[in-house]
Amino acid sequence: MRILGLDPGLRHTGWGVIDIAGNRLRYVADGAVHSSEKAPMAERLVQLHDGLAEVVRSFAPTEAAVEETFVNKNPTSTLKLGLARGVVLLVPALAGLPVAEYGANHIKKSVVGTGHAAKEQVQMMVRMLLPGASPSSADAGDALAVAICHAHHRQTQSGIAARALSWQEGRAP
Amino acid sequence: MRILGLDPGLRHTGWGVIDIAGNRLRYVADGAVHSSEKAPMAERLVQLHDGLAEVVRSFAPTEAAVEETFVNKNPTSTLKLGLARGVVLLVPALAGLPVAEYGANHIKKSVVGTGHAAKEQVQMMVRMLLPGASPSSADAGDALAVAICHAHHRQTQSGIAARALSWQEGRAP
Repeated sequence: MRILGLDPGLRHTGWGVIDIAGNRLRYVADGAVHSSEKAPMAERLVQLHDGLAEVVRSFAPTEAAVEETFVNKNPTSTLKLGLARGVVLLVPALAGLPVAEYGANHIKKSVVGTGHAAKEQVQMMVRMLLPGASPSSADAGDALAVAICHAHHRQTQSGIAARALSWQEGRAP
Repeated sequence: MRILGLDPGLRHTGWGVIDIAGNRLRYVADGAVHSSEKAPMAERLVQLHDGLAEVVRSFAPTEAAVEETFVNKNPTSTLKLGLARGVVLLVPALAGLPVAEYGANHIKKSVVGTGHAAKEQVQMMVRMLLPGASPSSADAGDALAVAICHAHHRQTQSGIAARALSWQEGRAP
């Protein structure tokens, strides 16, 4: 099981790849794809698309998880985030991956233990939970945090499913 | 010269294709691509992507024009429009087409003659300006209006360029 985490942004979209091996998480890679502020909007979206499609090709993840976009009070900023997020959701889905979405508080709670953690705490916990990881940027670190959140969520769900099965079969949970 | 006009929306994205032959516009086709409200967001964006990619393949336009998204006061609506718009800008750009963007008032002014025209006037003028066109939906009619606006804009620009050239060459404009 290999998870691609994504933190969408029009200028910089962070990405991070981790493996789940049994109960353990293993760091694989991280980075960010960029779009040029000087390029026309459609061209910027092509830059994000091409960069992310290359990441999907190179690392062949089996699932993707995307941080839910903070809905800004500034409608123009919200629209721009939406444009980038549309491409970020599209690329892994075009490659046939299931794409999960998690809110920022859910991610913080999963990684740090509280939904109100500071950004620096998230970055520090990512390095603790993924030995060998030294994210190349805050965006890349946030993307690894989304991947960790998805891994925990999957493990919890499969734990619940396993217990439900044990119960149905008359075994102690 | 073949123009693809696009009116982005998450549920329905209208599209319309016209040809410019000399000073005349010729209607080619119109329609809408849809996404299922019941599908997860990434899947809906794939549905829009696949539908629009099929239109681009079938009609082989040389340029695209997209209506600028109305920035709603409701941030959630604005974000959803942004997601769809990201995909709508991306698809023709991935096919190598230049993608122009026009505001709603600019389109109305170009098609009806005033930026404050009612929706019905736009739809009526589309049928007047494109003999044979009977748009399959309001979204498709709006997409044809964007294509007409782009055709006018191009003709005006090439007219200005031609006059500038005449002037440089010392001929009467």
